This record gives sequence, C-alpha cells and structure tokens, in this order.
Amino acid sequence: MKRIAIVGTGLIGGSIGLALRRAGHEVVGVERDPQRAALALEVGAVSELLSIEDAARRADLVMVAVPVSSVADLVVAALDAGALAVSDVGSVKAEIVKTVTAARPSTAMRFVGGHPMAGSELDGLDGANADLFVGSTWVLTPTAITDADAFTTVRSTVVELGADAVAVPPARHDDLVAVVSHVPQLAASVLMDLAAETGEEHATLLRLAAGGFRDMTRIAGGHTAIWPDICETNREAIVATLDRYIAALGGVRSLVEGSDRAGLLAVLERARTARRSLPGGRPVDEALVELRLPVPDRSGVIGEVTTLAGQLDVNIADIEITHSVEGRAGLMSLVVPEAGAVAFEAGLRVLGYHVARSSLS
Amino acid sequence: MKRIAIVGTGLIGGSIGLALRRAGHEVVGVERDPQRAALALEVGAVSELLSIEDAARRADLVMVAVPVSSVADLVVAALDAGALAVSDVGSVKAEIVKTVTAARPSTAMRFVGGHPMAGSELDGLDGANADLFVGSTWVLTPTAITDADAFTTVRSTVVELGADAVAVPPARHDDLVAVVSHVPQLAASVLMDLAAETGEEHATLLRLAAGGFRDMTRIAGGHTAIWPDICETNREAIVATLDRYIAALGGVRSLVEGSDRAGLLAVLERARTARRSLPGGRPVDEALVELRLPVPDRSGVIGEVTTLAGQLDVNIADIEITHSVEGRAGLMSLVVPEAGAVAFEAGLRVLGYHVARSSLS
Repeated sequence: MKRIAIVGTGLIGGSIGLALRRAGHEVVGVERDPQRAALALEVGAVSELLSIEDAARRADLVMVAVPVSSVADLVVAALDAGALAVSDVGSVKAEIVKTVTAARPSTAMRFVGGHPMAGSELDGLDGANADLFVGSTWVLTPTAITDADAFTTVRSTVVELGADAVAVPPARHDDLVAVVSHVPQLAASVLMDLAAETGEEHATLLRLAAGGFRDMTRIAGGHTAIWPDICETNREAIVATLDRYIAALGGVRSLVEGSDRAGLLAVLERARTARRSLPGGRPVDEALVELRLPVPDRSGVIGEVTTLAGQLDVNIADIEITHSVEGRAGLMSLVVPEAGAVAFEAGLRVLGYHVARSSLS
Repeated sequence: MKRIAIVGTGLIGGSIGLALRRAGHEVVGVERDPQRAALALEVGAVSELLSIEDAARRADLVMVAVPVSSVADLVVAALDAGALAVSDVGSVKAEIVKTVTAARPSTAMRFVGGHPMAGSELDGLDGANADLFVGSTWVLTPTAITDADAFTTVRSTVVELGADAVAVPPARHDDLVAVVSHVPQLAASVLMDLAAETGEEHATLLRLAAGGFRDMTRIAGGHTAIWPDICETNREAIVATLDRYIAALGGVRSLVEGSDRAGLLAVLERARTARRSLPGGRPVDEALVELRLPVPDRSGVIGEVTTLAGQLDVNIADIEITHSVEGRAGLMSLVVPEAGAVAFEAGLRVLGYHVARSSLS
C-alpha cells in the first residue's frame, strides 16, 4: 500500500484517486476550490483533504494534476515539503522541468514529469473514472539527474493505473506532441475557420463537406480553453512545427502551381505509406473495403448491423455514421476486410439495407 | 423510360448504369477498354456497347464518366453526334465547362456539368452498385446558356439515382471543393508526411498519435492516383485556397509566438462554432458524452456493445475503434447523448467492460 497525494482533483486527479483507492492505496487530496474539494471527498476520489505541505510530507508520491501554467509552483511546494517523488500530468514538459530544476537544483531529481494521453487537466471531476487510463499511453520525461527510486515509484503507479508507460526526454516529448497534437489542433481549427469564411453560400459549402473534411476538422469542435496555456508553454516547438508545416504546404503549392504530377504523387504516396503504418491501424497488407449504407436515425440500427458482422465472423475495422442534411437519416460507413465483405454485404441486403461498396486498397 | 448512354464504365458509370437499368431505363455503354466493356455487359451495367457517335445519336442523355482530363473531348464528341443532353461526373468543373463552351459555342447549352459527391471516377467496376448515390449530394453546374430541357433531363436522372441535386456555378463549385476536399487532402498528406519525417523515434511518435491526429490524417491513407489530375484541372482554386490556408496558419503562428491568448482563443472559438454547426452533425444543443472502453480485437464485440445500446434505446452518434500498439486489443470510443449515458455505462459494466467517460459539451 502506497500513500499518494493528489494535487488538483479535476478529471485527471480525480480519476487517479479513484483508481488508486480502488487498488487499496491511501489517497489524500490537495484542492484550493472548496466545491471541488467537497466533491472529491463525496465521490471518494480522496479520503481526506490536506494542505500541500502536510500532504507532501507523508506521501510516497505527489501527483500534481493542475493546468500547465500552475504545475511548476506546486511541484516546488511539494519538493520543499520533503516529498520523496513528485510527478505531474501537464501536456507540455520541457518548460516545467526546466523551471523546477532551476528553482530547486538540489531536490529536482525527485520530480519526474508525466503526461497521460487521455483526458484533460482542465476538465472537471464529473467525468472522473477509475478506468480513465486503462489502455492509454502515459509519457514520463526523466532527465539525467532523475532519482531512480522516484522514477520507479512514478512508473509503477502509472502502470498500476492501467497505462503503458513510455519514457521520452522532455524536449523530445514537446516536439512530438507539437507534431501529433498541438499543430494538428491549430491546423484543424484554421481549416474549419477558412471553410466557414468561404461561405456566403455556407449551406451549399457544408453540404459538400464529405467524410474527409469532417474527419479533418473533428477536433476543431472540442474544448478551446486548454489551448492558450499549451501554446504558451510549448511555444517554441509549436512555432517551429508550424513553420515546417507552412513550408511543406508551400512546397506542395509549388508542385500544384507547376503541374508537377510526379512530385505531387511522390508526396502523397509517402504520406499514404506512413498513414497506413500508423500503429493502431490495421496491418498494411490486409485489403479492406468500405461499405456504405443509408440507415434510419434510430437506436438499434448499429446493433443490428454489427451483430450480423459478429455472426458472420467479420471484424469491423472502422465504423462511422454521418447524419445527412435535415436529419432525415444517416449514412453508415463500415470498413471491413475484403475477405469477409461479400458475405457481409449479402447479409446486409437480406436485412433490407441498400449497400454501396468501394475498395480501400 | 429514357435511353441513356454511359461513356466510361468504371465505378461511377457502372453504378449509374445498374441503377438506371433497375429503374427500367435503356442503358447503352461506350468503353474503349475491351475488358471493362465485357465486364460492364456481364454485370448488367449496360445492355450493349456502341461507339460514342451511335450511342449519343439515339440517347436522351449521355453521361460521361471518365477521368477529369478526358471529359471535355468526350463531351464534345457526344455533342457533335447530336446528343440532346450531356453531363459528366468529374470532380472539377470550371475548366471542363470552359473548354466545352469554347470548342462548341453553338451546342454547349446542352452540356450540364455534374459532380456526384460519392465514389471516384478512377475506381474500377468492381465496387459498382445501384445504390452508390442514395443519400449523397450531386452538384450540377448550369451556366447562363444552359438549355432548360437538358438541365431537366440531367436533374431528374440524378434525383432518380437517389441523390440530392444541388445547382452551383462551375467556378463556385471548384472553389468549394478546393476548400472542403482538395486542400484538406493535401493538408492531411503534408501533416502525415511531416509526422513521419519527425521520427527517428518513429514508434514513440506514433504511439502518441491519439484520435485527433488519426482523424486528421485518415484521408492521407486513401487513393493517390486521382490527385494529380484534380490538382492540375483545379489548379487556380487550389493554389488560391492553399495561399489562404498558409496565410491563416501564419496568422496563428504569430498569435502563438506573441502569446496572444485572446487572439488565439478567438480563432479557436470561431472554428468550434462553425464545426458544431456542420450539417450532418448532431443538433448543437444536444449534450453528448464519450465513453471509452478497451475491447478485445475479435468479431462480435461491436455487436455486443451496440446491441446493448439498442436494448437501452440509446442512439450511438459516433463509434470508433482504435487498435492499440502491438495489436493486443482495441480501444472503442462511443459518443452517445448524455441522457442515456448512465444506463448505457451501467450496462457495459454489467457485460464486464471497463468504461471511461468524458463530457463533450
């Protein structure tokens, strides 16, 4: 049994607390907002609330789960109180690690930066859940001075939460999330903004927005409040990545303007190969087909369709429903291995669906 | 009963043929590739194969369904043979309309450009399907000289195929698809290429690629062969849109570099509002929650989960499965209305799933 102090009982802090208490550990909380504090006690995310000094003094591990801009101060406070191991959950790492190391050079070895790739430190306790991290990736950012015992404590806790721990240097983490998270978010928002701006004939424009555009702009529909902090704290990596992105788009612009078909195809093919090798996608050599079928907008439709897939032993690789204009009905897109597609399509027709099929290979 | 000639019996031409023959019309084909021609007869997409002259002479409507770069020549050939109405299915319109009008000023009024927002004119007949266009949007691009009878013939045929016909001027169509289709495709490919390039620590990078990045780059994994033609034919609109996109990204870069939190938030909020107003999304005021659960990578899982949703009368707005690294298992994401989420989550737990929940409102 470990004693863990959670600083900040929002979505992530609360979820950590619930999971660790379920696993039999002692979890105390530090929360300056009285309402959040009361709620954390009520849902059982923490067993009691203390000052950060008292909490850090008696804990094996202090997890700081507050917005990026407040992390460093609270990590320092925990170190000053004598904490043996401190970690955080901020989405940016280099600046936090640098600030803590500069402020407390003699105790900073007991701080291990962390970033769970699930949830957001700005969300409230409402969604807190002991299973929030199961199956997710949790980045840890040890440095040359990191204390081995502190790292072991942090890592074993992360693993106990059900996450896969991955260790990456802080600056490298920030470069990576700039590429796979921060710049994609900005790029999606800018694209959506551009499309909205194009529309005196807004309605027409948006009726032409098929699946690709919807996919690309989905994240633009999410929370916005978290981004100013992230952009400020990871400014350098984001600006550098935006510069690379803008330069690469400029390169493609030249290829289009010069009708350089071969050059264009080379970029697209390279990207296609990379996309199809993304872990989590299907194996590259498995031929897939997409089946599209109009479906009524009612419960049970997905169940009917996918139960059929189960009966026929067809493993659905991807499934999406787009709701059509005026909400009359939806269009379901199913991506399945080519091997099982014929039987599946036949079964769908027997159930009365009109199915269109296209190859994705 | 109409007599329709299909020029080019690939995915789109073949699907048009199958649908119109099912509806009782006479459909003849024009196809210079002997294998495609034989296949079109075999699957019943056309009842016979003719020269374009013979086909156009006796048809009420000629549908030209060939790659963008060959459309204008074949439209002109059909007009020269005396066709009463001609349309096409190319994804770019202004250059085709301009070329046809310049080449045949006295008969061009009988050509109505068209673009079904489903399938691709480069795909083969294998995926051809009488229901390919059901529920999709089909853009028509009449001009000031367009003949009313020709337009009526084309439009009624498109509606008979199950599509929603939308009329837009040719140049406007091209601007719109540059924004919602062509530039998004290029932007996704460039982003994926950038991410792939970033990775000496490739594997780590890609493990951090969560749902947002996957969504944004999904179209980069699709067919590439269609794009050089599209980029060449819609060059002006694509270059202009890329310029606007690059300029807008440069603007966001300045906001990030200058730590302009309010300016950044304004862009993100504007984009968020626009994204949430996309037709086909859920009603804006319906609160949604996302449930995430680790699932084994086997058939039947989706059926089990979604059958439960049907039993509980919970309408699944979105469903996605991400396969985790090393393919051990997948992570299912379900978006459902908040109203039914509690019962659904409870049911999932009864079935043994570990469920994490986050609010999307």
